[in-house]
Amino acid sequence: MPSVVPAWEDVAAANKQRLDAAVEAASFATPDVSAKQLNVKDAGKELLTAEEIAITESSVEELLIKLRSAEWSSEAVTRAFVHRAVIAHKLTNCLTELFFDRAIERAKFLDDELKRTGKPTGLLHGLPISLKNQIDVEGVQMDLCYVGWVGRVAKRNSVVVDCLLKQGAVVYCLTNMPQALMSGETVCNLHGRTVNPANRALSAGGSSGGEGALIAMRGSPLGIGSDLGGSVRIPSAFNGLYGFRPSYNRIPYGGSSNSMQGFEAVPSVLGPMTCSLDGLKTFFKAVIDAEPWRADPLALHMPWNEAAYQLKEHGEGKEPLCFGFNFHNGVAKPDPPYLRAMDMLKKALLAQGHKVIDYSPPDAATGSRILTELYIADGGEDIKKECATSGEPVLGGVLKGREMPHLSTFEYWQLCLERRNWITGQLEAWEATKALTGTGRPIDALVAPPAPYPSFRHGDKQDIFYTGLCNICDYPASVFPVTTVDAELDKKAAPYDFASDFDRLNYERYDPEVYRDISVALQCIARKGEDEAALRMTEICVAALEAL
Amino acid sequence: MPSVVPAWEDVAAANKQRLDAAVEAASFATPDVSAKQLNVKDAGKELLTAEEIAITESSVEELLIKLRSAEWSSEAVTRAFVHRAVIAHKLTNCLTELFFDRAIERAKFLDDELKRTGKPTGLLHGLPISLKNQIDVEGVQMDLCYVGWVGRVAKRNSVVVDCLLKQGAVVYCLTNMPQALMSGETVCNLHGRTVNPANRALSAGGSSGGEGALIAMRGSPLGIGSDLGGSVRIPSAFNGLYGFRPSYNRIPYGGSSNSMQGFEAVPSVLGPMTCSLDGLKTFFKAVIDAEPWRADPLALHMPWNEAAYQLKEHGEGKEPLCFGFNFHNGVAKPDPPYLRAMDMLKKALLAQGHKVIDYSPPDAATGSRILTELYIADGGEDIKKECATSGEPVLGGVLKGREMPHLSTFEYWQLCLERRNWITGQLEAWEATKALTGTGRPIDALVAPPAPYPSFRHGDKQDIFYTGLCNICDYPASVFPVTTVDAELDKKAAPYDFASDFDRLNYERYDPEVYRDISVALQCIARKGEDEAALRMTEICVAALEAL
Repeated sequence: MPSVVPAWEDVAAANKQRLDAAVEAASFATPDVSAKQLNVKDAGKELLTAEEIAITESSVEELLIKLRSAEWSSEAVTRAFVHRAVIAHKLTNCLTELFFDRAIERAKFLDDELKRTGKPTGLLHGLPISLKNQIDVEGVQMDLCYVGWVGRVAKRNSVVVDCLLKQGAVVYCLTNMPQALMSGETVCNLHGRTVNPANRALSAGGSSGGEGALIAMRGSPLGIGSDLGGSVRIPSAFNGLYGFRPSYNRIPYGGSSNSMQGFEAVPSVLGPMTCSLDGLKTFFKAVIDAEPWRADPLALHMPWNEAAYQLKEHGEGKEPLCFGFNFHNGVAKPDPPYLRAMDMLKKALLAQGHKVIDYSPPDAATGSRILTELYIADGGEDIKKECATSGEPVLGGVLKGREMPHLSTFEYWQLCLERRNWITGQLEAWEATKALTGTGRPIDALVAPPAPYPSFRHGDKQDIFYTGLCNICDYPASVFPVTTVDAELDKKAAPYDFASDFDRLNYERYDPEVYRDISVALQCIARKGEDEAALRMTEICVAALEAL
Repeated sequence: MPSVVPAWEDVAAANKQRLDAAVEAASFATPDVSAKQLNVKDAGKELLTAEEIAITESSVEELLIKLRSAEWSSEAVTRAFVHRAVIAHKLTNCLTELFFDRAIERAKFLDDELKRTGKPTGLLHGLPISLKNQIDVEGVQMDLCYVGWVGRVAKRNSVVVDCLLKQGAVVYCLTNMPQALMSGETVCNLHGRTVNPANRALSAGGSSGGEGALIAMRGSPLGIGSDLGGSVRIPSAFNGLYGFRPSYNRIPYGGSSNSMQGFEAVPSVLGPMTCSLDGLKTFFKAVIDAEPWRADPLALHMPWNEAAYQLKEHGEGKEPLCFGFNFHNGVAKPDPPYLRAMDMLKKALLAQGHKVIDYSPPDAATGSRILTELYIADGGEDIKKECATSGEPVLGGVLKGREMPHLSTFEYWQLCLERRNWITGQLEAWEATKALTGTGRPIDALVAPPAPYPSFRHGDKQDIFYTGLCNICDYPASVFPVTTVDAELDKKAAPYDFASDFDRLNYERYDPEVYRDISVALQCIARKGEDEAALRMTEICVAALEAL
């Protein structure tokens, strides 16, 4: 008799039941929120104790101080974040796995160790950390958001998880992402769609959108996303978080799952997403200090560089910096709230004595084309094969509707060469700003929007080159929130000379009423390998804004 | 009327005439040597002045000291090396371009600057440096040893040349290499074959064999080779030189020409070849200090790491090191001279208080297969296309006779993934030696032969995995001479259980009489990114041997 292959919908439904059961096992009440309520950021708060609120609304640094001093136990902190993660999930559909019991057991172990030895475990003692649904945790289902992967259980921790555990972290959940990770919004056949907590009619961003929604809802203080074209920065931006895309291979990818494995020309990178600025440096340093190159053969042997963080190569941190401001990348003009945010930051930096110049990286259209062609060089075969194992439909994501010719290796190498030549031009253009800055150096960092839009309606067309520039050039880049969309201040502009079809589309769909309550973030972009300097310059930007 | 396309042989012959004219223009006498004389290392010395001999037989450090103090002018030093380069070329066919007049002009400029300012220019003031025939020099023909490229003139210096010029070097010639750089011997249709100066019946190694022969003949104190599978180390080893393969993207490749451009999975790297140990560190530090990341977008932003050079992560340089010794890689047993050299080094290190253990990287056969499949993933299309432009025949090199299926991009990505998994296994195995070393650390470095053979008869079959291991894993690795083939000491062993067809072939062709006078070198192999430590540990090996 032929074996019965279940329909993919049934597999997905059964998996959802399993997840629901895990969520229910935590025994938290469901918040009473109408399905029509768009902004749910504070919804369900009435279900929390004062201590749970205090814990979950602390910065990463505050949490770590109190965890180290045992003022808060890791168990209490973990329970508080799990509680809020459950609320976040019920309102935004952000979780894909919740391993509550294991996390509490781990937290108790860390509490006991602190009591026993008087010493905290590592730089992240007791801190709960959430993980995008591609970061393998031993014994936890790793489905990569493919229906055909349901039932696969990770046999080993990914290297980054081992680094975090070495530093005393508690991992407790996996979060949603789009099919194949190839979208700036978060929807897959297996787990459905994650929505933006500030406005559920809009995208949470992607591909690390589960993290974005979870952390924005304070269901996690810090999570790991991945970034191949903006996938850490876009959901961080859309949800008012701080996010960081490190240079290639500084944070170890080894042992994590991924789509399009073996595509190494533009490596995806792992990076932190967090509700507090200090979380970026804390995460980066903690992972690097755990010596990931001892476990991941592609990880760079580059210890934390304190001199670089102190801006040794940027006037020793004592001279004014010069920031390039990219008001328009030549592909799509940013929406009005971004132009306002750029002006705010410009004013803030000038007030601190820094310099600014206009700088738009040349020929973005070509860079964008090359990056896209690299993504689809296999003709989408990797994604098609994975979908075929269950019969789930291919969704397309950011590549929806695009023709995808499958290149030969020779053709692929020519594309890689074209990319190399293009980024050489980018490097030369950046160096050439030396003549314009007045500091004797080229621009120290580049400020740009993370997207032309603050978010978009579910299913809308996307253009990711404001972030993708950093992926093709390997620029480390952060995002940080500056303001929120304001219908009064961010009125639609008069039509202008559109740079592309997408530019026109983006202009036409812009509506500050529709985008209400959405965070408006900016990127601080540094040069390849200058991760520590990127983190410091981000802090300088944020401090300047706070001083305004 | 149809235009007449010249036969490739005619193009090559005309090009040879042009080179011969450049060589003759230097007006040096031709050494009187029989075509049958095998060892020509000291031939033609009678044509040199005492000062020319003193200059050309100095170490890099001695040269730099005397250049800086103006005891020797750069002009005199350059003229001496050009003289000897011409002799070397006449005896081994190592040059492809000689730009004598420009070099002298440059040397005079540097001399004048030193006189005028009292200060030397950079770390390499006045030092002549030779370049493999893929390192672009503005205004000099860059033919990449393809007949079809004859007449192409480089429009810009490659980044590495700019770095060297910034540091005060003088460039004066390009050197021969095999077609497409894909061989451990040096023969191409355009420039012919370069032979080993110690035994002209044998290979000079490759692909940087022109450099190997030139430097061995003291026609250059230091040259740049490139290494994709051993191409710096094999000719360095075969010619009794010091050579160094840095980690990926530390020495800039930008602006240099190459075959198989866009093949980035296992990047070729540039590295120094030199007659004196100190030349390795001097070159590496000089290039890195010139900040290559400001001109090459793939170059890593990793300044010279003095702490790493002082072995900070290897017991601070104060504790005994532990070296792993690979006496057999499982593919081909090294010839008897290597086993003797390994024993010499083992004894030498033990005498200095260091530790040694046997260590053979696991599953070399698989690694070797993956590396080869990566090289030919385009089905040889790149090489075929270049040859087709002139009609010159494809030579095959190390891939001779191999079937070369052209992979699709998806298949290529699967191969890249297989490679990643394999090197993960290598990393785990290296880490696991921690239990065996007695130092509390895994082995600090790995010692291995650079090949199973000390050289081979022209056209012989090759196996490059003793070096290729470092390319697939990105291990920085040096070679340094230990001894020479000795017919008395290195008698053929009794037949053993052969690990492969190649192992048998290599056993059968071994003859210490045939390989007479050939240098026997070893590799000192460190971990990815530990270039500075690799250089220091090489110095420790060489010092230990000298102290024996």
